[in-house]
Amino acid sequence: MFSIIKNDKNSNARLGVLELPHGKVETPCFMPVGTLGAMKALKHDVLEKLGCDLMLANTYHLYLRPGIDVIKKYGSLHNFTAWDKNFLTDSGGFQVFSLANFRKIETEGVDFKSHIDGSRHYFTPESVFKMQEIFESDIIMALDICSSYGIDYSEASLYTNITTSWARRTLRAYENRKEGYDGLLFLITQGNFFKDLRKRSTEAILELDSPGIAIGGISVGEPRDKYLEILEYNSSLIPKVKPKYVMGIGTPHYILDAIYYGIDIFDCVNPTRIARHGSLLTDNGILRIKRAEFNFDTCPVERDCSCTLCTRYSRGYLRHLIKSEETLGVMLASEHNIHYMFRLIKKARNAIMNGDFTKFRKLYLSKYDEGNFDE
Amino acid sequence: MFSIIKNDKNSNARLGVLELPHGKVETPCFMPVGTLGAMKALKHDVLEKLGCDLMLANTYHLYLRPGIDVIKKYGSLHNFTAWDKNFLTDSGGFQVFSLANFRKIETEGVDFKSHIDGSRHYFTPESVFKMQEIFESDIIMALDICSSYGIDYSEASLYTNITTSWARRTLRAYENRKEGYDGLLFLITQGNFFKDLRKRSTEAILELDSPGIAIGGISVGEPRDKYLEILEYNSSLIPKVKPKYVMGIGTPHYILDAIYYGIDIFDCVNPTRIARHGSLLTDNGILRIKRAEFNFDTCPVERDCSCTLCTRYSRGYLRHLIKSEETLGVMLASEHNIHYMFRLIKKARNAIMNGDFTKFRKLYLSKYDEGNFDE
Repeated sequence: MFSIIKNDKNSNARLGVLELPHGKVETPCFMPVGTLGAMKALKHDVLEKLGCDLMLANTYHLYLRPGIDVIKKYGSLHNFTAWDKNFLTDSGGFQVFSLANFRKIETEGVDFKSHIDGSRHYFTPESVFKMQEIFESDIIMALDICSSYGIDYSEASLYTNITTSWARRTLRAYENRKEGYDGLLFLITQGNFFKDLRKRSTEAILELDSPGIAIGGISVGEPRDKYLEILEYNSSLIPKVKPKYVMGIGTPHYILDAIYYGIDIFDCVNPTRIARHGSLLTDNGILRIKRAEFNFDTCPVERDCSCTLCTRYSRGYLRHLIKSEETLGVMLASEHNIHYMFRLIKKARNAIMNGDFTKFRKLYLSKYDEGNFDE
Repeated sequence: MFSIIKNDKNSNARLGVLELPHGKVETPCFMPVGTLGAMKALKHDVLEKLGCDLMLANTYHLYLRPGIDVIKKYGSLHNFTAWDKNFLTDSGGFQVFSLANFRKIETEGVDFKSHIDGSRHYFTPESVFKMQEIFESDIIMALDICSSYGIDYSEASLYTNITTSWARRTLRAYENRKEGYDGLLFLITQGNFFKDLRKRSTEAILELDSPGIAIGGISVGEPRDKYLEILEYNSSLIPKVKPKYVMGIGTPHYILDAIYYGIDIFDCVNPTRIARHGSLLTDNGILRIKRAEFNFDTCPVERDCSCTLCTRYSRGYLRHLIKSEETLGVMLASEHNIHYMFRLIKKARNAIMNGDFTKFRKLYLSKYDEGNFDE
């Protein structure tokens, strides 16, 4: 299911291939977020051309809209959305904690109110597994509790224990999954920013021997050095044979750091979210197209970029579209930023293949931080 | 510049070719509206594939955003927007009367406040001509006064006279246009819903012998029989050799009526506007995708349609996207509706070519009105 093609000599970075029901995925892999089973402002065929083999969709959102019964009628999330490549669906846990108007965590599950209409719902490890089984998700995530940065040890310990017990229950449900369905279960480590909790959580999760492991609860607003410390520590506790996933990281720094510490999969809404506000990811840093200096600029956003935006349109026109809130501007900027992410990952993969990832990471980020846009 | 290929025997419908600086346009022609130099939610390459040779952009909007100086810097509206086919730009008159927060009509021009920031501006026939000359518009429209349905005769007469005097001034500016620029000027007839004013206006406009004529001031909220009466009457006053344009019509009924009475060009925001609210144009009438009955519907919106939406996605998925206000839903629905419009016009052209346009119109609209969607 997961094969490592090459290990980097100077870091924990590696090249791999993850075999999933809807096709192979090369790792490291950036996964765009299609919350409701659709990328924001990007058509499926554009994503396919960009080489996207794995999309993330959010179970919490799909549960509320269109509802599980609708997707069930179509046979799978793939059929419903007409996306024939892989889906990873999250457990909904993170959304319950970040979006719901009200939530109450119990050992049984979590009680919450919809952020859309305030209606009351209850998620258990078994129910969110069942939903993802109905989706026929290619990667299934277990329900977990993602705690905030800065909580005290006893609270963190409690949530870690609940996450572990939920992981056990999810594994049991997974072992009794329906005939013929072979999505991969990823269990999630927690432990907040306490190393001994991370260790306890990871050991318990590893004992369950799920096909993949996610490191949860980092990149939640903590300082960068804290993120790196826990990322490195937690990743080192997980055997190399397991594919490793870190949720919600999407800046070049965080991604190249994650690759450096052996992470294979990551996702983030960042590239499309910032695109909507006119922030364009480039090898020279973020270009903020709304700035007045781009008004008369006939250059493309990025000269060497082969996306639709950069091969046809000028900075001045994109600025006009974004300033005027034209949908076309959002479409072009989103495509550019996703194209950028795939290109960055490809460069990282090439660097690992060529044995110079550490050097690449340093040089790339240094150029990125300089922010010298071509004229 | 305008050649008639075939005249229908049983109506005033005709097939023609209009030669413009950025390529030939077959008529009858539906022109999509790209207000700010961009179609809402449709990429240029999609429009090109749909066979769009002529797009409308609004001078009033472009004047306010990004401003004439920006477009001038790029050399033309085509260069600025990277749209290499034809542009028709309107005069801004209609927007001044429908959008501006304040307007004062004088014989010299019109004083108004921007709908965006309330700033004060002044348009004259010469200034709006100049803007369109800077755009290098392929069809230029003269500044006119589009009056409301129901105003009294003396007011209608006054506005008609001003429109005529503005047409004369526009023609003078056009005759002194810059070297090498060969867009076509269309002058506009007015006269509200009074036949003698229509006659007076049209005679005066025809005397100026502009390359094309637009019938202005209809489809402004009047009853359908009033629309048809003035459309037929005003069109009959214009010699067949002139290309004829009616602004702001975009429903199958209004368009097939216009073709019947000899109109060659029309535009409307309707197809994309209703798409955003989930109304899909089909040969069987308007399908309102938000209806609950489509929740579990695995059929495409229209079985025989070859657009991206209908060849890949189900009604249920589109419903989900539109209900959830996902941009992808708007993109797919907009593409479908514009695809529909081009297909309708193509069918009308084929019918004229085959000599059975009158029959086609009757049968088509009867099926359209029945509204029997396939299962």
